[in-house]
Amino acid sequence: MTAPRIVHGGGVAAAARRFGGRPEDWLDLSTGINPNPAALPEVDVAAWHRLPDRHRQDAARAAAARYYGTSGALPFPVPGTQSVIQLLPRFAAAGRRAAVVSPTYGEYARVLENAGVAVDRIAGLNAVRDAHGLVVVVNPNNPDGRLFSREALLDLHRRVAGSGGLLVVDEAFGDMRPEAAIAPLAGDGMPGLLVFRSFGKFFGLAGLRLGFVIGEAPVVDRIEDGLGPWAVSGPALTIATGLMTADTAAIRRSIDARKAALESVLVGAGIDIVGGTGLFALVDHADAPAIHEGLCRRHILVRPFDYNARWLRFGLAPDATSDARLAAALAEVTAGR
Amino acid sequence: MTAPRIVHGGGVAAAARRFGGRPEDWLDLSTGINPNPAALPEVDVAAWHRLPDRHRQDAARAAAARYYGTSGALPFPVPGTQSVIQLLPRFAAAGRRAAVVSPTYGEYARVLENAGVAVDRIAGLNAVRDAHGLVVVVNPNNPDGRLFSREALLDLHRRVAGSGGLLVVDEAFGDMRPEAAIAPLAGDGMPGLLVFRSFGKFFGLAGLRLGFVIGEAPVVDRIEDGLGPWAVSGPALTIATGLMTADTAAIRRSIDARKAALESVLVGAGIDIVGGTGLFALVDHADAPAIHEGLCRRHILVRPFDYNARWLRFGLAPDATSDARLAAALAEVTAGR
Repeated sequence: MTAPRIVHGGGVAAAARRFGGRPEDWLDLSTGINPNPAALPEVDVAAWHRLPDRHRQDAARAAAARYYGTSGALPFPVPGTQSVIQLLPRFAAAGRRAAVVSPTYGEYARVLENAGVAVDRIAGLNAVRDAHGLVVVVNPNNPDGRLFSREALLDLHRRVAGSGGLLVVDEAFGDMRPEAAIAPLAGDGMPGLLVFRSFGKFFGLAGLRLGFVIGEAPVVDRIEDGLGPWAVSGPALTIATGLMTADTAAIRRSIDARKAALESVLVGAGIDIVGGTGLFALVDHADAPAIHEGLCRRHILVRPFDYNARWLRFGLAPDATSDARLAAALAEVTAGR
Repeated sequence: MTAPRIVHGGGVAAAARRFGGRPEDWLDLSTGINPNPAALPEVDVAAWHRLPDRHRQDAARAAAARYYGTSGALPFPVPGTQSVIQLLPRFAAAGRRAAVVSPTYGEYARVLENAGVAVDRIAGLNAVRDAHGLVVVVNPNNPDGRLFSREALLDLHRRVAGSGGLLVVDEAFGDMRPEAAIAPLAGDGMPGLLVFRSFGKFFGLAGLRLGFVIGEAPVVDRIEDGLGPWAVSGPALTIATGLMTADTAAIRRSIDARKAALESVLVGAGIDIVGGTGLFALVDHADAPAIHEGLCRRHILVRPFDYNARWLRFGLAPDATSDARLAAALAEVTAGR
């Protein structure tokens, strides 16, 4: 039995087939990606032409170490953290269970269960038991934004590693909260800890397919073996090297401003925000399904959740024009409710 | 026991560390990639920015179907065929063996054996037996260029599929010999046949990480599940769509001319060519190790083979200046031998 594929955000083509309009004319708020992509640094012809050679990977790893503040390991580039989630069943010890702090990004449980791993969807860190050989925490969490402190995660890590297990901390949305990130502590000397970082969300370049994993060499070696040679494209390595060594303060300010604008629109529409990260807001509303469909009819896509019909996740709009478009649509959709 | 990683071509950084020079100043003939990359079509900002959406993948699949001449299936894009080789153990039926027509691209046997699959390295198609549930043929073969006819492969396919097995035909170097390609026959109605195509070799864009698989829907579905969502970057899909629908005759002529120039240089140096494809030549020489090292000292990298010390594989040089550089180096290296 294979669990059905998950319908993620980003499916504007499917939405446009159902509700009309050209995909490029939709306002896609269904993902948690910086809506204003960072300006691309120059990509040399060799990055496109050659198999990605070691020196290009080394440069990206050094840039990522500086950006993430790691000292115990050089972050290892992967073609999106999804590609490593696909490998996670290999890290589930035979006879032990996996625990995924839930609700969260659905691919963890899906991939593990499809590979025959027994998964407990647990509500908090206290529910981790010795039977759990693999524990997954997304921090800050998607979609509710719950944020565990570094201390709480280190305490959990001691328990999990103490029983020979592996703790995976997915910091895909961690760029805006570096003070809570555990990535700087991962690497050699921290067995049983594996941190995932996403490149595309903060820099607004999700199409590039790039992430980093940070952990002890034996674990990262197994990931490298699982992905095989040349897993990450040359342009992705080159662009990451350029952007991670540049000044990222302007990107932070832009994301902060866009998030504040989104919150203003939602509050102005009388919609309660119940969670989020720097890159999205989660709202809770009794009429969420109708709001979702009403926005679709106006060619605005937000993210519903099959496990909670009251929730919608709103990503950031790129500019004030889009804010106004969303505000007008929400005013129509919620009128009279 | 895990087999050690394979040292492939493309390792100019490692060679430069040992023999000096900047990697970008080396003449890298160690891979089988068109040395003159196709001009990149325009890549829209959304390709970089968004998660690769369905309509972008659909456009690439339609372009690939036209380029490869498939009618029974839309080719499915993957981030390099290496990524699918990593998944091949899933297609090895329990209790049956795999056969790899050898010598060939080393990752097939390595990945299968690391996953616990018993692999027979067979010398020809006649050695395939009913015990083989998975059979791999690289056609034309890397590195010797051996080319099986379409009829021979169809005959083999009948035998393999008849016993419930899967025949993988890797046509990574097939673009210059479309008349021998079996890709146009793969897809629905051909159970047990899976064809791999490489995008980067012919178009000279190996850094992009893109390939296609062509097969029956149930097999391709399992590959899609194994790779997970958004495996291929947006720019890769967009560039492939543009180039595969453009006129490729000029690329063919350029590769043909570069191959003829390489053969002239090798023959002029008194070196016997024993095989090859449109994108590389295989030579056999008693002093191959000394030639390899002598070229390295002159910052030219060719591909040696740990399983045959008499072989070297020469990729295409980009232009007449590089031809002359190779010719001069070979004259020095072989002087007095």
